[in-house]
Amino acid sequence: MVWYHPINYNFKNDISSLIGQKVAFMENDALKELKEAVLARISPRTEEEAYLKEIAELLIKKIDLIACSMDLKDVSANLVGSAARNTWISGTHDLDIFIMFPGDASREELEKKGLIIARKIAEESESFEERYAEHPYINMRYRGFDVDIVPCFRVGSAACIRSAVDRTPFHNEFIKKNIQGLEKEVLLLKQFMKGAGVYGSELRTQGFSGYLTELLVVKYSSFENVIRSACDWQPGTYIDLNSHGTIQHEEPLVVIDPTDPKRNVAAALSLDKFCMFIDSCREFVLSPSLYLFFPRSVTPLDDRDLFHKLKSRGTSFIAIAFKTPDVVEDVLYPQLYKMELAVVALLEEHEFKVLNKGSWAGQNTVILMELVSATLPTLRKHRGPPVWVHKHAESFKAKYIAAEDVFAFYIENGNYVAEVPRKYPNACSLLKERLTSCSIGKQVSSAAKNGFKVLRGSEICGIHDQSFKLFLMNWPNI
Amino acid sequence: MVWYHPINYNFKNDISSLIGQKVAFMENDALKELKEAVLARISPRTEEEAYLKEIAELLIKKIDLIACSMDLKDVSANLVGSAARNTWISGTHDLDIFIMFPGDASREELEKKGLIIARKIAEESESFEERYAEHPYINMRYRGFDVDIVPCFRVGSAACIRSAVDRTPFHNEFIKKNIQGLEKEVLLLKQFMKGAGVYGSELRTQGFSGYLTELLVVKYSSFENVIRSACDWQPGTYIDLNSHGTIQHEEPLVVIDPTDPKRNVAAALSLDKFCMFIDSCREFVLSPSLYLFFPRSVTPLDDRDLFHKLKSRGTSFIAIAFKTPDVVEDVLYPQLYKMELAVVALLEEHEFKVLNKGSWAGQNTVILMELVSATLPTLRKHRGPPVWVHKHAESFKAKYIAAEDVFAFYIENGNYVAEVPRKYPNACSLLKERLTSCSIGKQVSSAAKNGFKVLRGSEICGIHDQSFKLFLMNWPNI
Repeated sequence: MVWYHPINYNFKNDISSLIGQKVAFMENDALKELKEAVLARISPRTEEEAYLKEIAELLIKKIDLIACSMDLKDVSANLVGSAARNTWISGTHDLDIFIMFPGDASREELEKKGLIIARKIAEESESFEERYAEHPYINMRYRGFDVDIVPCFRVGSAACIRSAVDRTPFHNEFIKKNIQGLEKEVLLLKQFMKGAGVYGSELRTQGFSGYLTELLVVKYSSFENVIRSACDWQPGTYIDLNSHGTIQHEEPLVVIDPTDPKRNVAAALSLDKFCMFIDSCREFVLSPSLYLFFPRSVTPLDDRDLFHKLKSRGTSFIAIAFKTPDVVEDVLYPQLYKMELAVVALLEEHEFKVLNKGSWAGQNTVILMELVSATLPTLRKHRGPPVWVHKHAESFKAKYIAAEDVFAFYIENGNYVAEVPRKYPNACSLLKERLTSCSIGKQVSSAAKNGFKVLRGSEICGIHDQSFKLFLMNWPNI
Repeated sequence: MVWYHPINYNFKNDISSLIGQKVAFMENDALKELKEAVLARISPRTEEEAYLKEIAELLIKKIDLIACSMDLKDVSANLVGSAARNTWISGTHDLDIFIMFPGDASREELEKKGLIIARKIAEESESFEERYAEHPYINMRYRGFDVDIVPCFRVGSAACIRSAVDRTPFHNEFIKKNIQGLEKEVLLLKQFMKGAGVYGSELRTQGFSGYLTELLVVKYSSFENVIRSACDWQPGTYIDLNSHGTIQHEEPLVVIDPTDPKRNVAAALSLDKFCMFIDSCREFVLSPSLYLFFPRSVTPLDDRDLFHKLKSRGTSFIAIAFKTPDVVEDVLYPQLYKMELAVVALLEEHEFKVLNKGSWAGQNTVILMELVSATLPTLRKHRGPPVWVHKHAESFKAKYIAAEDVFAFYIENGNYVAEVPRKYPNACSLLKERLTSCSIGKQVSSAAKNGFKVLRGSEICGIHDQSFKLFLMNWPNI
């Protein structure tokens, strides 16, 4: 997870001076000005909006014509997502166009014919690729837009969907109906979440989805009200607009889907992103500021300064580097997070103490571990049975006293102790020898098996990639 | 505690080859020969015995005469201890002579007049000093003997003693009556315990006293029977020759005093010395050997080899050295052991991991600590409250985010974490600054306060004292 938390950026003094004296930030002129300043930067301009509308309509018309030409009378295209709801931020040119098949169409027909239509459209694109979720769909660059063309079933209600994407049109309807007049509040909240590093429900970020953001605005009626309420959120916060939830959920935030009583819209939100949002909301209440929406970008340190910054921590850094496998981020990141945990477990099993962990992926992938120390004593105290447990004690003693490489054998607190050679006194050797036996995800595992390097200290700063340098600079805020 | 455990001395192969096949060591010729070989070295020769008797009788006579001349008709001298019971090892020339005052004498009279008599005797000694236990007494060098002259009360039974030493004459009577014919067995057992490093009940050793050794022989009838029985001892082993014990005892070995039902004669025996004895007894059963009675002495390594031996462990050694305070061992060692624990607690409070500890005292005293590492990261992760505990979280954040020296501030598993500078990243600095605030014994504390050094690594091997070198060589078997 890469996030830039506002606390990195010089707010220290503002906050500490304001703590305790809650700023009455609601509905005053300064806040109004601040919101306007934010909106001035993120609201789509009239011509931007018109262009988006034009392209969307054009694509929908083309799809409908192709469907018609294929004699698919009940198939029609539909614009969904933020573009359809006027909740998109200026500059983000995403279009989600769904090709809706009848609810009783066969899965085979949907997949086959859906793809035929989508491919035809894609012929006119600058570039495209076929992607696979539950069904195949097409993602393309088209006249400055990032367009997803997704076949789905038109079902009676979100509770009886046949595929995960079938839910989207229902979300679209609900938001379109309920968000009118609140679109600007959604824009503000989305931008605020981006600033806090918690926007995006993909598996890399584990933050707030666009739909979740919109539901929060529907629930609380305004950007400010969401912020103010979130300051007091606790794990288990429960929001159910329709009061129709039927299932117990364990996630820190539960927002029941108004179109599906069983579903928690915030299921992908991690505890830490939940907390980071609360933290940022409190910052805003204390000191509303443009920087919370648009964090200052950090000027990367040069190699030497970066090295000294890391060195000043007095810890040991170890990196595992390998070629990034060719998979989408939603496949890659869960495997990297799993790998982090497996590496920590391996290190801790051998008594290395891990302070912080993180991963970064560019052309290469780096799993970075920060240890109290990358070396341990040559020996290890192996505690045996109490001396008075006759049989066990005798065989323990016989085993270790005969061993050539035992450093010492003695009695401590009634137990035999054999000081035996430590198998891995060096964390690098441990990782080099044992990494591939770790339980890590399929693609990452095979990428690592094709060859990985274990780097230490200054070697790590030698990885030449500006994005990696930024990752190091923000460490351990990753 | 300094001990030389037989397992240090090359028995490895003997034992491992014999394990599992119990050697029938009882009453065979080899064992008989072994016992005779041991006794040949430790039984007092006839002339040695005669000389001891002569000196003892001479001193008793002198005391009686002095008492008489002071008109103390009910005061008389009495030889007690191993010299009185023929259970002393050749070469150990200790005499314990008790000046027995009537049971109803005043404490003042005993102390005053007892000391007058003792001082008169001491006038003829080569050297002497007044020592203090519950009462003052005199220790002197007298014609090759180490003589204690101890005033005590002659009471009706050991249960109604007025001072701790009053018990000794009762022990003397009991053993004299019950040990006849078993004196050689006692000699063998004492020497065996010396070989195992468990003989001596002083606070430095925390092993078996002479009286305890004698009681074990009375209980089990022979050296071999003690050895065989001890192989299966467990903590809580209970021996009560008179079946008259009245009190629950918590020590690993309980041997009720035949002259005092409330007293555990083995109260001073530590768990580890108890276990070391069991361990040595099992060694003897597996492979009876002269070396168990007389461990080979170790040739000290030269400084370089010693340094390399310690270095090869890959650990960090830190020593605290100061001038040994001028107190008897029974005062010194408990304070040193207390200091070891206090130093370990101080180090562990600051996250240093102690592998082994020990102390040595010659002209200087050295408390030695072996650490996983003597240095730790410059920073320390300080975990704050969960972010959702609004008030606590806010004040934690305000405190640390404003601090100039905070390395990083972030959220981890729902909690705020501040990476703050570690106060003592170096164990040496910690000890230098904080040692004198440790809870350590009075004399040792003031000795340390008068000036101590903290030594590391090679500096430790630079302490020039053969006995200290031996202490290092056997490390961590101290």
